[in-house]
Amino acid sequence: MPRVTDEYLAARREHILAAAAVRFSRDGFHQTSMQDVIEEADLSPGAVYRYFRSKDDIIMAISLQATEAVQTVVREALETHRPLPDLMAELPSAFEELDHAEARMRLAVQAWGEALRNPKLAEAMREGIEGVQAALRDRVTMGQREGEITTDVSPDEAAHALLSLIQGFLLQHSWNPRLSATTYGHGTRAVVAGLLAR
Amino acid sequence: MPRVTDEYLAARREHILAAAAVRFSRDGFHQTSMQDVIEEADLSPGAVYRYFRSKDDIIMAISLQATEAVQTVVREALETHRPLPDLMAELPSAFEELDHAEARMRLAVQAWGEALRNPKLAEAMREGIEGVQAALRDRVTMGQREGEITTDVSPDEAAHALLSLIQGFLLQHSWNPRLSATTYGHGTRAVVAGLLAR
Repeated sequence: MPRVTDEYLAARREHILAAAAVRFSRDGFHQTSMQDVIEEADLSPGAVYRYFRSKDDIIMAISLQATEAVQTVVREALETHRPLPDLMAELPSAFEELDHAEARMRLAVQAWGEALRNPKLAEAMREGIEGVQAALRDRVTMGQREGEITTDVSPDEAAHALLSLIQGFLLQHSWNPRLSATTYGHGTRAVVAGLLAR
Repeated sequence: MPRVTDEYLAARREHILAAAAVRFSRDGFHQTSMQDVIEEADLSPGAVYRYFRSKDDIIMAISLQATEAVQTVVREALETHRPLPDLMAELPSAFEELDHAEARMRLAVQAWGEALRNPKLAEAMREGIEGVQAALRDRVTMGQREGEITTDVSPDEAAHALLSLIQGFLLQHSWNPRLSATTYGHGTRAVVAGLLAR
Protein backbone atom coordinates (compact mmCIF):
# COMPACT_ATOMS: atom_id res chain seq x y z
CA MET A 1 0.00 0.00 0.00
CA PRO A 2 2.39 2.76 -1.11
CA ARG A 3 -0.18 5.47 -0.55
CA VAL A 4 -0.46 4.78 3.16
CA THR A 5 3.32 4.70 3.40
CA ASP A 6 3.63 8.07 1.67
CA GLU A 7 1.08 9.56 4.01
CA TYR A 8 2.86 8.13 7.01
CA LEU A 9 6.18 9.53 5.83
CA ALA A 10 4.65 12.94 5.19
CA ALA A 11 2.95 12.95 8.59
CA ARG A 12 6.17 12.04 10.38
CA ARG A 13 8.09 14.73 8.51
CA GLU A 14 5.37 17.19 9.52
CA HIS A 15 5.61 16.02 13.15
CA ILE A 16 9.37 16.69 13.17
CA LEU A 17 8.89 20.14 11.64
CA ALA A 18 6.20 21.00 14.19
CA ALA A 19 8.53 19.94 17.02
CA ALA A 20 11.37 22.00 15.53
CA ALA A 21 9.03 25.00 15.18
CA VAL A 22 8.31 24.91 18.91
CA ARG A 23 12.00 25.08 19.80
CA PHE A 24 13.15 27.38 16.99
CA SER A 25 10.43 29.95 17.57
CA ARG A 26 11.20 30.04 21.29
CA ASP A 27 15.01 29.72 21.39
CA GLY A 28 16.08 30.78 17.89
CA PHE A 29 17.76 28.75 15.16
CA HIS A 30 21.22 28.93 16.71
CA GLN A 31 20.44 28.10 20.33
CA THR A 32 18.54 24.98 19.28
CA SER A 33 20.47 21.76 18.58
CA MET A 34 19.46 18.67 16.62
CA GLN A 35 19.33 16.93 20.02
CA ASP A 36 16.73 19.50 21.20
CA VAL A 37 14.61 18.82 18.12
CA ILE A 38 14.93 15.05 18.59
CA GLU A 39 13.83 15.40 22.24
CA GLU A 40 10.93 17.68 21.37
CA ALA A 41 9.79 15.27 18.64
CA ASP A 42 10.16 12.33 21.07
CA LEU A 43 11.73 10.17 18.34
CA SER A 44 15.03 8.33 17.96
CA PRO A 45 17.94 10.24 16.39
CA GLY A 46 17.82 7.81 13.44
CA ALA A 47 14.16 8.58 12.82
CA VAL A 48 14.84 12.31 12.65
CA TYR A 49 18.06 12.04 10.60
CA ARG A 50 16.20 9.90 8.09
CA TYR A 51 14.22 13.01 7.11
CA PHE A 52 16.73 15.77 7.75
CA ARG A 53 20.48 15.34 7.45
CA SER A 54 21.26 18.47 9.44
CA LYS A 55 19.79 21.35 11.39
CA ASP A 56 20.32 23.53 8.33
CA ASP A 57 17.98 21.24 6.40
CA ILE A 58 15.31 21.71 9.06
CA ILE A 59 15.82 25.49 9.15
CA MET A 60 15.39 25.52 5.38
CA ALA A 61 12.21 23.39 5.45
CA ILE A 62 10.63 25.32 8.28
CA SER A 63 11.44 28.74 6.81
CA LEU A 64 9.96 27.68 3.50
CA GLN A 65 6.86 26.42 5.28
CA ALA A 66 6.39 29.77 7.03
CA THR A 67 6.89 31.69 3.77
CA GLU A 68 4.50 29.42 1.89
CA ALA A 69 1.84 29.82 4.56
CA VAL A 70 2.05 33.60 4.13
CA GLN A 71 1.93 33.26 0.36
CA THR A 72 -1.17 31.06 0.49
CA VAL A 73 -3.05 33.47 2.76
CA VAL A 74 -2.27 36.42 0.46
CA ARG A 75 -3.18 34.55 -2.73
CA GLU A 76 -6.48 33.35 -1.31
CA ALA A 77 -7.36 36.85 -0.12
CA LEU A 78 -6.51 38.38 -3.49
CA GLU A 79 -8.85 35.94 -5.21
CA THR A 80 -11.83 37.37 -3.32
CA HIS A 81 -11.75 40.51 -5.52
CA ARG A 82 -12.55 42.79 -2.60
CA PRO A 83 -11.57 46.49 -2.72
CA LEU A 84 -7.87 46.85 -1.95
CA PRO A 85 -8.25 48.76 1.37
CA ASP A 86 -10.59 46.05 2.73
CA LEU A 87 -8.49 43.23 1.39
CA MET A 88 -5.27 44.56 2.93
CA ALA A 89 -7.10 45.28 6.20
CA GLU A 90 -8.31 41.70 6.50
CA LEU A 91 -4.99 39.95 5.88
CA PRO A 92 -3.76 40.17 9.51
CA SER A 93 -6.84 38.26 10.73
CA ALA A 94 -6.22 35.62 8.09
CA PHE A 95 -2.66 35.16 9.40
CA GLU A 96 -3.94 34.79 12.94
CA GLU A 97 -6.21 31.96 11.81
CA LEU A 98 -3.31 29.82 10.55
CA ASP A 99 -2.41 26.71 12.53
CA HIS A 100 0.42 27.58 14.92
CA ALA A 101 0.06 31.19 13.81
CA GLU A 102 2.25 32.75 16.49
CA ALA A 103 5.11 30.34 15.88
CA ARG A 104 4.87 30.73 12.10
CA MET A 105 5.01 34.52 12.31
CA ARG A 106 7.99 34.43 14.68
CA LEU A 107 9.74 31.93 12.43
CA ALA A 108 9.19 34.14 9.39
CA VAL A 109 10.85 37.07 11.20
CA GLN A 110 13.75 34.89 12.32
CA ALA A 111 14.13 33.50 8.81
CA TRP A 112 14.42 37.01 7.33
CA GLY A 113 17.49 37.68 9.47
CA GLU A 114 18.95 34.21 8.99
CA ALA A 115 18.64 34.47 5.20
CA LEU A 116 20.91 37.54 5.20
CA ARG A 117 23.86 35.34 6.12
CA ASN A 118 22.69 32.11 4.47
CA PRO A 119 22.51 32.52 0.67
CA LYS A 120 20.99 29.07 0.16
CA LEU A 121 18.11 29.91 2.49
CA ALA A 122 17.71 33.35 0.90
CA GLU A 123 17.49 31.77 -2.53
CA ALA A 124 14.87 29.29 -1.35
CA MET A 125 12.75 31.93 0.39
CA ARG A 126 13.07 34.45 -2.43
CA GLU A 127 10.62 32.53 -4.61
CA GLY A 128 7.87 32.73 -2.01
CA ILE A 129 8.40 36.42 -1.28
CA GLU A 130 8.54 37.28 -4.98
CA GLY A 131 5.35 35.27 -5.41
CA VAL A 132 3.55 37.48 -2.91
CA GLN A 133 5.02 40.59 -4.54
CA ALA A 134 3.85 39.40 -7.97
CA ALA A 135 0.35 38.62 -6.70
CA LEU A 136 0.05 42.13 -5.23
CA ARG A 137 1.34 43.66 -8.47
CA ASP A 138 -1.22 41.68 -10.48
CA ARG A 139 -3.98 42.85 -8.14
CA VAL A 140 -3.05 46.50 -8.75
CA THR A 141 -2.92 45.91 -12.51
CA MET A 142 -6.35 44.27 -12.39
CA GLY A 143 -7.71 47.23 -10.41
CA GLN A 144 -6.36 49.58 -13.04
CA ARG A 145 -7.96 47.58 -15.84
CA GLU A 146 -11.29 47.67 -14.06
CA GLY A 147 -11.08 51.41 -13.30
CA GLU A 148 -10.75 50.93 -9.50
CA ILE A 149 -7.19 52.29 -9.38
CA THR A 150 -5.69 55.22 -11.27
CA THR A 151 -3.17 54.32 -13.98
CA ASP A 152 -0.83 56.98 -12.56
CA VAL A 153 0.48 54.29 -10.23
CA SER A 154 3.23 51.80 -11.10
CA PRO A 155 1.92 48.38 -10.02
CA ASP A 156 5.44 47.17 -9.28
CA GLU A 157 6.29 50.17 -7.06
CA ALA A 158 2.97 50.01 -5.23
CA ALA A 159 3.40 46.28 -4.62
CA HIS A 160 6.55 46.93 -2.56
CA ALA A 161 4.61 49.19 -0.20
CA LEU A 162 1.70 46.73 0.02
CA LEU A 163 4.15 43.93 0.81
CA SER A 164 5.50 46.09 3.65
CA LEU A 165 2.03 46.37 5.16
CA ILE A 166 2.01 42.56 5.37
CA GLN A 167 5.60 42.13 6.56
CA GLY A 168 5.13 44.88 9.14
CA PHE A 169 2.25 43.02 10.76
CA LEU A 170 4.27 39.80 11.02
CA LEU A 171 7.11 41.75 12.62
CA GLN A 172 5.10 43.99 14.95
CA HIS A 173 2.85 41.15 16.06
CA SER A 174 5.82 38.88 16.78
CA TRP A 175 7.33 41.60 18.90
CA ASN A 176 4.08 42.43 20.63
CA PRO A 177 1.46 39.65 20.50
CA ARG A 178 -1.04 42.04 22.10
CA LEU A 179 -1.15 44.03 18.86
CA SER A 180 -4.43 42.70 17.50
CA ALA A 181 -5.13 41.94 13.86
CA THR A 182 -8.17 44.22 14.16
CA THR A 183 -6.20 47.24 15.37
CA TYR A 184 -3.54 46.72 12.73
CA GLY A 185 -6.17 46.12 10.07
CA HIS A 186 -7.94 49.40 10.87
CA GLY A 187 -4.70 51.32 10.45
CA THR A 188 -3.92 49.55 7.18
CA ARG A 189 -7.38 50.27 5.78
CA ALA A 190 -7.04 53.96 6.68
CA VAL A 191 -3.65 54.25 4.97
CA VAL A 192 -4.61 52.34 1.79
CA ALA A 193 -7.92 54.20 1.54
CA GLY A 194 -5.90 57.43 1.53
CA LEU A 195 -7.42 58.80 4.74
CA LEU A 196 -4.04 60.21 5.78
CA ALA A 197 -4.06 62.48 2.75
CA ARG A 198 -7.39 64.18 3.15
CA MET B 1 42.79 66.54 29.93
CA PRO B 2 39.77 64.37 30.71
CA ARG B 3 37.84 65.62 27.67
CA VAL B 4 40.40 64.25 25.22
CA THR B 5 40.42 60.97 27.08
CA ASP B 6 36.64 60.70 26.91
CA GLU B 7 36.76 61.39 23.20
CA TYR B 8 39.46 58.78 22.74
CA LEU B 9 37.46 56.19 24.66
CA ALA B 10 34.32 56.96 22.67
CA ALA B 11 36.22 56.78 19.38
CA ARG B 12 37.75 53.44 20.27
CA ARG B 13 34.38 52.06 21.32
CA GLU B 14 32.98 53.27 18.00
CA HIS B 15 35.87 51.63 16.15
CA ILE B 16 35.11 48.28 17.80
CA LEU B 17 31.40 48.56 16.99
CA ALA B 18 32.17 49.42 13.36
CA ALA B 19 34.44 46.36 13.12
CA ALA B 20 31.75 44.17 14.69
CA ALA B 21 29.15 45.60 12.28
CA VAL B 22 31.24 44.46 9.30
CA ARG B 23 31.37 40.87 10.57
CA PHE B 24 27.87 40.68 12.06
CA SER B 25 26.15 42.09 8.99
CA ARG B 26 28.00 39.64 6.74
CA ASP B 27 28.11 36.46 8.85
CA GLY B 28 25.29 36.97 11.36
CA PHE B 29 25.47 37.32 15.13
CA HIS B 30 25.95 33.63 15.79
CA GLN B 31 28.60 32.76 13.23
CA THR B 32 30.79 35.63 14.45
CA SER B 33 33.04 35.09 17.50
CA MET B 34 34.68 37.63 19.82
CA GLN B 35 37.95 36.54 18.18
CA ASP B 36 36.55 37.55 14.76
CA VAL B 37 35.61 40.98 16.12
CA ILE B 38 39.05 41.39 17.74
CA GLU B 39 40.76 40.50 14.43
CA GLU B 40 38.53 42.81 12.41
CA ALA B 41 39.19 45.66 14.87
CA ASP B 42 42.94 44.90 14.77
CA LEU B 43 43.22 45.39 18.53
CA SER B 44 44.39 43.25 21.42
CA PRO B 45 41.78 41.06 23.17
CA GLY B 46 42.28 43.15 26.32
CA ALA B 47 41.51 46.37 24.46
CA VAL B 48 38.22 44.96 23.18
CA TYR B 49 37.18 43.29 26.44
CA ARG B 50 37.78 46.58 28.24
CA TYR B 51 34.73 47.96 26.38
CA PHE B 52 32.59 44.87 25.96
CA ARG B 53 32.59 41.94 28.35
CA SER B 54 30.96 39.58 25.89
CA LYS B 55 29.63 39.18 22.37
CA ASP B 56 26.13 39.67 23.78
CA ASP B 57 27.19 43.14 24.98
CA ILE B 58 28.35 44.00 21.46
CA ILE B 59 25.15 42.62 19.88
CA MET B 60 23.16 44.78 22.28
CA ALA B 61 25.18 47.94 21.56
CA ILE B 62 25.14 47.46 17.83
CA SER B 63 21.43 46.66 17.66
CA LEU B 64 20.66 49.75 19.70
CA GLN B 65 22.85 51.82 17.40
CA ALA B 66 20.96 50.57 14.34
CA THR B 67 17.59 51.24 15.98
CA GLU B 68 18.66 54.71 17.12
CA ALA B 69 19.89 55.60 13.64
CA VAL B 70 16.45 54.71 12.25
CA GLN B 71 14.74 56.70 14.99
CA THR B 72 16.86 59.81 14.32
CA VAL B 73 16.12 59.71 10.59
CA VAL B 74 12.38 59.45 11.20
CA ARG B 75 12.30 62.18 13.85
CA GLU B 76 14.26 64.59 11.67
CA ALA B 77 12.00 63.93 8.69
CA LEU B 78 8.86 64.45 10.78
CA GLU B 79 10.15 67.84 11.91
CA THR B 80 10.12 69.12 8.32
CA HIS B 81 6.29 69.34 8.41
CA ARG B 82 5.97 68.06 4.86
CA PRO B 83 2.70 66.42 3.70
CA LEU B 84 2.61 62.83 4.95
CA PRO B 85 2.77 61.10 1.50
CA ASP B 86 5.92 63.07 0.60
CA LEU B 87 7.46 62.62 3.99
CA MET B 88 6.97 58.84 3.98
CA ALA B 89 8.20 58.66 0.38
CA GLU B 90 11.48 60.39 1.22
CA LEU B 91 12.42 58.30 4.26
CA PRO B 92 14.09 55.49 2.26
CA SER B 93 16.53 57.96 0.68
CA ALA B 94 17.34 59.34 4.12
CA PHE B 95 18.19 55.82 5.30
CA GLU B 96 20.47 55.30 2.32
CA GLU B 97 22.39 58.44 3.26
CA LEU B 98 23.35 57.09 6.70
CA ASP B 99 26.99 56.14 7.28
CA HIS B 100 27.35 52.39 6.70
CA ALA B 101 23.72 52.35 5.56
CA GLU B 102 23.70 48.85 4.09
CA ALA B 103 25.25 47.31 7.19
CA ARG B 104 22.93 49.22 9.53
CA MET B 105 19.83 48.09 7.65
CA ARG B 106 20.98 44.45 7.61
CA LEU B 107 21.81 44.65 11.31
CA ALA B 108 18.36 46.03 12.09
CA VAL B 109 16.72 43.06 10.31
CA GLN B 110 19.01 40.59 12.09
CA ALA B 111 18.30 42.28 15.42
CA TRP B 112 14.52 41.89 14.94
CA GLY B 113 14.93 38.12 14.75
CA GLU B 114 17.51 37.95 17.53
CA ALA B 115 15.31 39.95 19.87
CA LEU B 116 12.58 37.29 19.63
CA ARG B 117 14.78 34.88 21.60
CA ASN B 118 16.68 37.45 23.67
CA PRO B 119 14.33 39.30 26.03
CA LYS B 120 17.05 41.68 27.24
CA LEU B 121 17.76 42.79 23.67
CA ALA B 122 14.03 43.07 22.94
CA GLU B 123 13.56 45.28 25.98
CA ALA B 124 16.45 47.52 24.94
CA MET B 125 15.25 47.84 21.34
CA ARG B 126 11.61 48.33 22.28
CA GLU B 127 12.21 51.89 23.44
CA GLY B 128 13.60 52.93 20.05
CA ILE B 129 10.81 51.26 18.07
CA GLU B 130 8.13 52.68 20.33
CA GLY B 131 9.79 56.08 19.91
CA VAL B 132 9.33 55.86 16.13
CA GLN B 133 5.75 54.66 16.59
CA ALA B 134 5.01 57.57 18.94
CA ALA B 135 6.56 60.11 16.55
CA LEU B 136 4.37 58.82 13.70
CA ARG B 137 1.28 58.90 15.92
CA ASP B 138 2.03 62.51 16.92
CA ARG B 139 2.46 63.44 13.27
CA VAL B 140 -1.01 62.07 12.44
CA THR B 141 -2.52 63.89 15.43
CA MET B 142 -0.86 67.13 14.30
CA GLY B 143 -2.23 66.63 10.79
CA GLN B 144 -5.70 66.17 12.23
CA ARG B 145 -5.38 69.34 14.31
CA GLU B 146 -4.33 71.29 11.24
CA GLY B 147 -7.08 69.86 9.03
CA GLU B 148 -4.69 67.87 6.78
CA ILE B 149 -5.98 64.50 7.92
CA THR B 150 -9.55 63.42 8.65
CA THR B 151 -10.38 62.80 12.30
CA ASP B 152 -12.02 59.51 11.28
CA VAL B 153 -8.58 57.91 11.64
CA SER B 154 -7.11 56.60 14.89
CA PRO B 155 -3.57 58.02 15.07
CA ASP B 156 -2.35 54.98 16.98
CA GLU B 157 -3.76 52.50 14.46
CA ALA B 158 -2.46 54.45 11.48
CA ALA B 159 0.99 54.70 13.06
CA HIS B 160 1.35 50.90 12.97
CA ALA B 161 0.80 50.86 9.22
CA LEU B 162 3.16 53.81 8.69
CA LEU B 163 5.80 52.04 10.77
CA SER B 164 5.41 49.02 8.47
CA LEU B 165 6.18 51.17 5.43
CA ILE B 166 9.51 52.01 7.09
CA GLN B 167 10.30 48.51 8.36
CA GLY B 168 9.38 47.01 4.99
CA PHE B 169 11.98 49.12 3.22
CA LEU B 170 14.71 48.05 5.64
CA LEU B 171 13.74 44.44 5.09
CA GLN B 172 13.21 44.48 1.34
CA HIS B 173 16.34 46.53 0.70
CA SER B 174 18.46 44.22 2.87
CA TRP B 175 17.20 41.28 0.87
CA ASN B 176 17.60 43.00 -2.46
CA PRO B 177 20.04 45.94 -2.44
CA ARG B 178 19.02 46.74 -6.02
CA LEU B 179 15.61 47.90 -4.74
CA SER B 180 16.22 51.65 -4.90
CA ALA B 181 14.98 54.14 -2.35
CA THR B 182 13.39 56.03 -5.24
CA THR B 183 11.37 53.06 -6.49
CA TYR B 184 10.24 52.19 -2.99
CA GLY B 185 9.50 55.85 -2.23
CA HIS B 186 7.25 56.15 -5.29
CA GLY B 187 5.19 53.16 -4.20
CA THR B 188 4.93 54.47 -0.66
CA ARG B 189 3.79 57.90 -1.84
CA ALA B 190 1.11 56.30 -4.06
CA VAL B 191 -0.24 54.18 -1.19
CA VAL B 192 -0.26 56.95 1.45
CA ALA B 193 -1.76 59.44 -1.03
CA GLY B 194 -4.62 56.97 -1.49
CA LEU B 195 -3.99 56.39 -5.19
CA LEU B 196 -4.83 52.68 -4.79
CA ALA B 197 -8.35 53.61 -3.78
CA ARG B 198 -9.36 55.84 -6.65
